Amino acid sequence: MEHTVKSYEQQLKRLDAVLVEMGGLCERQISAALEALSRRDRMLAEQTIAGDVPIDAMDREATELAVRVFALRQPLAADLRTVVGALRISSALERIGDYARNIAKRTVILLDQPMAGPVQGILRLGQLVQVLLKAVLDAYVARDAAGAVEVWKRDRELDDLYTSLFRESLTYMVEEPRNITACVHLLFIAKNLERIGDHATNIAETVYFIASGKPLAGERPKGGDRSPPPDTSAGGAA
Amino acid sequence: MEHTVKSYEQQLKRLDAVLVEMGGLCERQISAALEALSRRDRMLAEQTIAGDVPIDAMDREATELAVRVFALRQPLAADLRTVVGALRISSALERIGDYARNIAKRTVILLDQPMAGPVQGILRLGQLVQVLLKAVLDAYVARDAAGAVEVWKRDRELDDLYTSLFRESLTYMVEEPRNITACVHLLFIAKNLERIGDHATNIAETVYFIASGKPLAGERPKGGDRSPPPDTSAGGAA
Repeated sequence: MEHTVKSYEQQLKRLDAVLVEMGGLCERQISAALEALSRRDRMLAEQTIAGDVPIDAMDREATELAVRVFALRQPLAADLRTVVGALRISSALERIGDYARNIAKRTVILLDQPMAGPVQGILRLGQLVQVLLKAVLDAYVARDAAGAVEVWKRDRELDDLYTSLFRESLTYMVEEPRNITACVHLLFIAKNLERIGDHATNIAETVYFIASGKPLAGERPKGGDRSPPPDTSAGGAA
Repeated sequence: MEHTVKSYEQQLKRLDAVLVEMGGLCERQISAALEALSRRDRMLAEQTIAGDVPIDAMDREATELAVRVFALRQPLAADLRTVVGALRISSALERIGDYARNIAKRTVILLDQPMAGPVQGILRLGQLVQVLLKAVLDAYVARDAAGAVEVWKRDRELDDLYTSLFRESLTYMVEEPRNITACVHLLFIAKNLERIGDHATNIAETVYFIASGKPLAGERPKGGDRSPPPDTSAGGAA
C-alpha cells in the first residue's frame, strides 16, 4: 500500500496487486450477496451493499496508476497490453461489484415479499458464476491463455441456465400472481448474475490478449447477457 | 477514413471523429429500436439488430487509435485526459449500441405476444433517453462542462420515470396473467433504456473531466440503473 512507487516495475506490480485484490473482494461480495439471499439475512445484505465502496476506490486507484504509467513511461508491446488490459479488467471488476451490490439491494426488498420463485435455480446460477470468476482470476494471475479460453467457452452454460430460470420464473408468476413482485426481483437478480458471468467472459478475452498478444478470435459463444433468452416467448403465458 | 494518419494532431482529430460518428449511430439505433417497438415492425427490428455491427467496429478503431497515441506519443495534461476520456466514451457508446440492439431483439420476441403492457410509458422513457444522449454528445463536441453537468443532473428524472414504469408493469401482470411474458420483456426493455441513460450520465462525467480537468464531484444524483427502484416492493402484488 505504499504511495511512493519508485520504479516502473514497481508501478506495474502495484497495478497487478490492485487487480488481484479487487478480484478477491468481488468474489467475497458475490458469495455474501448469495448467502444473504438464501438466508434472507438483512444484516448481511446491508453489509454487502456497503462492501462495494472499497471496490470502487480500487478501480479509481487502478485507473490512476495506469494513466500515470501511460503519461510518465512509454509502455510498449507486452507492457502496453498489460496496462491497457488492466484498465479493462479493473472496469469489469468494478461493474461486477455493482452487480453484487444490486443483488444485495434486491435481497433487502425481497424481505417484504413471500419467499416464492426460483431461488434454488438462482443459487445454482450463482455457483457457476463464482466458479467462472475464480477461474478467470486464476488465469489472470498465471497469464494463462488456455485457462482464459476455457472460461470463455463456458459462457454458454451460463446462458442455458439463465434461459431455463427465465422460463421457470414466468411459470411461477402465471401460476400465482401473488408471486409476481418477488419473481420480477428474482429475475433481475438472475440477470445480474448473468451479467457478472458476461464480465467474467470479457475478462477472459482480456487475459487472453495480455497473455498471447492476440485477440480471442471468433464470436463469443453466445451474445451473453445483452441478448434476451432466445425462445422465451414460448415460456410462460402465451 | 484515411488510414495513414500523419501527425499527432491528426490522430487526435480522427479519434474525435470516430466518437462523434459512433454517437450519431447510437442515436439512430435507439430511435429505430423504439420505432420498431412502437410499430411492431419486424423488418426495422432486424435492421436495428444488424446495425450494431459498425458501432462495435468503431469502438475497436477508437481503442486502437488511443493505444497507438499512448504508445507512440506521450500525451500529457489535456491531451492525456482527452485520450483516456475517449476510451471511456467509446466503451460507453459501444454498450449503448448493445442495449439498442437488445431492445430490437426483445421487440422481435414481442411480436409473438399480445401487445399489452406499458408501451406508451416506455416510449416516453425512450424520448427522455434520446434527449439526454443528444445533449451529452453536444456537450462532448463543444467540450461544454456546464452542459455535461446538466445531463448528469437529469439522471434523476430517468430514475423516477423508470420506477413508475416498473410499478405500472407489475399492475398489468397482476391484472392479466396472459400479459406476463410481454410485460417481462417490456420491463427488460425499460431497464435497457435506463441503462442507456446511465451510460449517458457516465459520458457526462467524462466530458466534464475532459473539459475541466476535475472529476464531477459528489455522488451521482441516484445510483442509476444498477439500483433497483427504491420502493417497488409496495408496487404490485404484495
